Amino acid sequence: MPRFVPTFALLVPALLAPLPATADTPPGLTGFAPERQEAQHAYEAELRDTVDPERLAAWHDTTSSRPHVAGSPGDAALVEALAAAMTEMGLEVEKQELWLYLPHFVAAEVEVVTPERVTLDLQEAAFPEDPFSGHPELLPGWNAYSGSGEATAGVVYVNRGTKQDFARLAELGVEVAGKIVVARYGGNFRGYKAKFAEAAGAVGLLMYLDPKDYGYVRGLMWPEGGWANGTMIQRGALLTLPYPGDPLTPGVAADVPPTADGAPAYGDGHLSPMEVKMPSIPVQPIGWQAASEILSRMRGPVVPEEWQGGLPFNYRLTGGEGLTVRLRVEQHRRPTRTWNVVGRLAGERYPDEEIVVGCHHDAWSFGAGDPNAGTIVVLEAARAFAAAARAGQRPDRTLLFAHWGAEEQGIQGSVEWVEANVERLRDGAVAYVNLDMASMGPRFRGSAAPPLARSIREAAKAVASPVEGAGTVYDEWKGRSDGEPQLGALGGGSDHVGFYGHAGVPSAGFGGGGSEGISYHSNYEDLAWYRAVVGSDYVSAKMVTEVVVTLASRLAEADLVPLDPAGYAAGAGERLSELAAAVGEGERRTAIEQLVAQAAEVERAWLNAGEEAAAKLAAGGLGGEALIAANRRLRQADRAWLNERGLPGRPWYKNLYAAPDADSGYAPWLLPGLTARVEGEGDDAAFAATVEDYRQALERLGKVAEGVGERSGEEGEGGEP
Amino acid sequence: MPRFVPTFALLVPALLAPLPATADTPPGLTGFAPERQEAQHAYEAELRDTVDPERLAAWHDTTSSRPHVAGSPGDAALVEALAAAMTEMGLEVEKQELWLYLPHFVAAEVEVVTPERVTLDLQEAAFPEDPFSGHPELLPGWNAYSGSGEATAGVVYVNRGTKQDFARLAELGVEVAGKIVVARYGGNFRGYKAKFAEAAGAVGLLMYLDPKDYGYVRGLMWPEGGWANGTMIQRGALLTLPYPGDPLTPGVAADVPPTADGAPAYGDGHLSPMEVKMPSIPVQPIGWQAASEILSRMRGPVVPEEWQGGLPFNYRLTGGEGLTVRLRVEQHRRPTRTWNVVGRLAGERYPDEEIVVGCHHDAWSFGAGDPNAGTIVVLEAARAFAAAARAGQRPDRTLLFAHWGAEEQGIQGSVEWVEANVERLRDGAVAYVNLDMASMGPRFRGSAAPPLARSIREAAKAVASPVEGAGTVYDEWKGRSDGEPQLGALGGGSDHVGFYGHAGVPSAGFGGGGSEGISYHSNYEDLAWYRAVVGSDYVSAKMVTEVVVTLASRLAEADLVPLDPAGYAAGAGERLSELAAAVGEGERRTAIEQLVAQAAEVERAWLNAGEEAAAKLAAGGLGGEALIAANRRLRQADRAWLNERGLPGRPWYKNLYAAPDADSGYAPWLLPGLTARVEGEGDDAAFAATVEDYRQALERLGKVAEGVGERSGEEGEGGEP
Repeated sequence: MPRFVPTFALLVPALLAPLPATADTPPGLTGFAPERQEAQHAYEAELRDTVDPERLAAWHDTTSSRPHVAGSPGDAALVEALAAAMTEMGLEVEKQELWLYLPHFVAAEVEVVTPERVTLDLQEAAFPEDPFSGHPELLPGWNAYSGSGEATAGVVYVNRGTKQDFARLAELGVEVAGKIVVARYGGNFRGYKAKFAEAAGAVGLLMYLDPKDYGYVRGLMWPEGGWANGTMIQRGALLTLPYPGDPLTPGVAADVPPTADGAPAYGDGHLSPMEVKMPSIPVQPIGWQAASEILSRMRGPVVPEEWQGGLPFNYRLTGGEGLTVRLRVEQHRRPTRTWNVVGRLAGERYPDEEIVVGCHHDAWSFGAGDPNAGTIVVLEAARAFAAAARAGQRPDRTLLFAHWGAEEQGIQGSVEWVEANVERLRDGAVAYVNLDMASMGPRFRGSAAPPLARSIREAAKAVASPVEGAGTVYDEWKGRSDGEPQLGALGGGSDHVGFYGHAGVPSAGFGGGGSEGISYHSNYEDLAWYRAVVGSDYVSAKMVTEVVVTLASRLAEADLVPLDPAGYAAGAGERLSELAAAVGEGERRTAIEQLVAQAAEVERAWLNAGEEAAAKLAAGGLGGEALIAANRRLRQADRAWLNERGLPGRPWYKNLYAAPDADSGYAPWLLPGLTARVEGEGDDAAFAATVEDYRQALERLGKVAEGVGERSGEEGEGGEP
Repeated sequence: MPRFVPTFALLVPALLAPLPATADTPPGLTGFAPERQEAQHAYEAELRDTVDPERLAAWHDTTSSRPHVAGSPGDAALVEALAAAMTEMGLEVEKQELWLYLPHFVAAEVEVVTPERVTLDLQEAAFPEDPFSGHPELLPGWNAYSGSGEATAGVVYVNRGTKQDFARLAELGVEVAGKIVVARYGGNFRGYKAKFAEAAGAVGLLMYLDPKDYGYVRGLMWPEGGWANGTMIQRGALLTLPYPGDPLTPGVAADVPPTADGAPAYGDGHLSPMEVKMPSIPVQPIGWQAASEILSRMRGPVVPEEWQGGLPFNYRLTGGEGLTVRLRVEQHRRPTRTWNVVGRLAGERYPDEEIVVGCHHDAWSFGAGDPNAGTIVVLEAARAFAAAARAGQRPDRTLLFAHWGAEEQGIQGSVEWVEANVERLRDGAVAYVNLDMASMGPRFRGSAAPPLARSIREAAKAVASPVEGAGTVYDEWKGRSDGEPQLGALGGGSDHVGFYGHAGVPSAGFGGGGSEGISYHSNYEDLAWYRAVVGSDYVSAKMVTEVVVTLASRLAEADLVPLDPAGYAAGAGERLSELAAAVGEGERRTAIEQLVAQAAEVERAWLNAGEEAAAKLAAGGLGGEALIAANRRLRQADRAWLNERGLPGRPWYKNLYAAPDADSGYAPWLLPGLTARVEGEGDDAAFAATVEDYRQALERLGKVAEGVGERSGEEGEGGEP
């Protein structure tokens, strides 16, 4: 097992898988008629000039001064503040009211019972250096959607609680059934730790941040440095359903208020909690100091060498007879009100064509990192566009600035919004840009659907890096890359999932990283930590905001929207070649190789179409209805991947191009349907049906290409029949 | 810096550098006339059959039941026991009396003085599971040749105290002068930690075994497992003189008793202690529990990430103002009597041709690992040969079974014996086989001068591996190798150094490793630890003894001694090519490339000579004086590397082929003279002189080849002038 690297890449793991490079255009504006380029240069320069680090710091004060977990009074107050701020800017603000089936913390207790009674601390220590850490609204550690209940049992250490770890325990003959298991964070989405533990018969789960991954082995600890001290706890949700969003309303909006006695009121397509598999065992996150009280008392066989963490004793597989631990968790799940808050700046020429820039608003404590390091970027980008609009420059296309609710509980708000607006989005949405935790340091990185990669790189060339002497953001990024800097494939884990996986809207998530430390989902995720560890100068937030306004203004203003669907065909071809190699010789291989050939043809078609369209635009031969049609086709290229039956076993996920993986919840799978089949799911008939789905998707993608370069009737200069 | 792996390979680091492969002969006996092969097969099978695990266990009881540091009553008693045992076998036993300038432990104290007084434990904890651990003759931890004195000062952590580590501290602006420095063991010979610390102005040095390298991070700790518990201390000497052996008598035997008042009495070539640079600052080894009392109180800047060890806090570069430590060490250096004990089984046909099999007898505590895991192999091999001799089968050449004194204090006994017998050895010695710690596990490995590699591999093919189902020792060894199993290059660190580096006798050191744990140089290096961790069945000791008797009997009985000097030319050629690449273009490169070409010629000459001689032997055409002359030339091939001026800055080291490196003391340098020049020592004239030394050595090696295949006068069949 390779060494685990819990950095920013872990939090946004989609960054890890590079996309194949596609042909890049020279620096400059793509999709603009020559006579409009100068105006665009002036417009986007004005937008960038508006971005102000002091305003970013002020937005941070506004959003991060009070704990605001989803459904709490703090979050309701934040929703009002966000709405007020955007209204004041001059945006049309819409609050979408949601009723989500959310869990609420009631109580948690963990203690060593034998050989001696030791009650474990379940909340972070407060420090004078961090005045936020003593806030009265802060909660103890909890994992949303834990089962409620109590267990007293012996313990088993399960390393990271991955599928492989539980398989290893079975091989080693370690009995997990009836035990409370202890897992260290990292390696997979925490919900899978709970799922595998429950499947193995465990009666409870404790999770902690091991100092080898997050504490003194990495660097100085909070408040002296940025890493996890012994009381830091990572909170987080546990759902591993085959769909994100409200657990009771897959595919439809969760907008029905509860009954008078507070129970779910079922609308069309709503499920009862009885029908949805949520965790039933108690699950509790703790700090490494508390974990040490248990782990240091274990007396069973020693762990495999790579399972040893950073605490100062031998890690053991089992506690032995003398060690008993008691765990009690109580949570209340109930319909809970929250809101999405969306500010709209209507497009002047193409109001139905939308670019959405968003980030969630709910947090586990103050949210200074997750999400507000992104929220402040959304707000400042909105302020820049709104100021330009007030000064007379409105965008051609509509811009939406969104603050989603209850992302932390399972990407709920954004998914419900997508579900409520799916037809409109599939028709008119140009792109979704997700900014969760977007300004955590000066080093730019991200993931994107292939059609957006080129435009993101181009935007990065227009912005100065805050790293001294590094040139542009692009230069600094390239300096760390092997060749052309790559954007990772989109996995799961944040609000792009509804847009991309369900609606087929090309999406991206990016930002700055590279700071030394972690406070993720802890009570230390506050302004004191952020300003000490990431910085109080807000230069990374400024950088990211400048990239966002550059990118968004180009998407909003370009004559021909700067999407690059050829990247889909190239990416698909590369992934198909890997899958062909993985299946060995035989009929399956032949079938996949045919798809490889098809993808190559589609790539050529899009490259030709793109060149032709660009040439016509440069020559003034593309406008009016032809341009509108061409833009529709560019948008529709993404929708070509949508399949109404969805992925095998996950019908909500309609996008055949990419999805989160099915075992860890974080990693991206490219061509997930075919990947699932190659990994052995289903028989030959199922395999053939999936191949046919992909053949049709590529066919659709190819057909869409055919029309992009066509001239409109009224501007036709001959040559067409 | 690559990850440090403190296993057996650390203790015998020469294993790490693979030698180039040389052409191997098919399995079977090399150098035997056809008609003598059957008898040899029977003889060596009889020798192997004699080897008895119960006798090995009994030898272990005899040698490891009482602490026996050099110069102690326990060691004197062991010398008597060894002499008596070999006398009883029927060997001629000679005790060589030595007077060595050895240090003796008097007192040691370490305490934290501020911010609070904490006295640190300086001796291992005793456990009921390990009855040896409470022996009254056990000493606290000490480093032989520490300066005597006291220091009270602030502290600096210096990681492993290598040259690079001190350079890094200087870069980081950390002031070492006036401080007590704390270093973790590993990465270099501990003497260099002391040397670099003193050179940097430190006033004291503490060394400890970090749990990341040796403790709970590796596995279960003593007495539950084999790894270092918090009180385990690694003792060891600190000399880093440009010669091994008694520090006052480089190049001459240390056999002069002291004056009546106990002061050194100077013989010819003897030095005064004033003339010899020994450490002057106090140096003290401690356990990680004691180290933790200091390191956990440090408050300065955090260390570079790779300097962090396994204790549960951030490691710091400096203690900060509040931390003061006091260190006092007292040792007494004085002429001290000890003995080498050598048992001789005279050769019947060629008594002047000698094979020496040896291991030291002194230890830091009981020595169950270092050295007695080798001592028992020497004794049991001697018993097997002596029993065969009593039954009528005496070897053709002389076998010497040697137990050296004071190896732990600086490889003293063996070096003094070599110095006393250097002319005889250079003339008649066939090989030296060193068995220090030879049976520490079932997995065979070793290092050797190139001429011995083939014979060691062949001997390994005649012995069954104790690893179940693994076949022969060779098979098991090959199973872990990439291709043909290789023997490492010989570095420093044990008793082969005098034979190889000073007398030019082809040497080897090998044995079994692969056990999980370390008790090296601690008070836990006892029978309880050995039998729990390595095993109580003595199958690895049996395996190694069988390889030794097979190899030694072939060296003693073969008509044509099975040495393979072509390996020297091949190894030199490969190393010369590396050095040529390292110097870049220019005159120096041209000069080295000429040596490469010369080495290739010499290799061809030896391959031809070997084939010719083997053919003649097979055809019955090699015998009498011709055979004696041929064997002399095979022995002389090693002596071709001797250079009376020795290596640059290290005149005692005469062997131009290999030497311990000059900065860490453990790693082997091939072609050390030229290596030193390439690394920048000396001007162009010095470079040219060294190239000329190597040209002459290769010329000598080539000239020796010319005569090996020649027929003797009386058996000549024509063709020679």
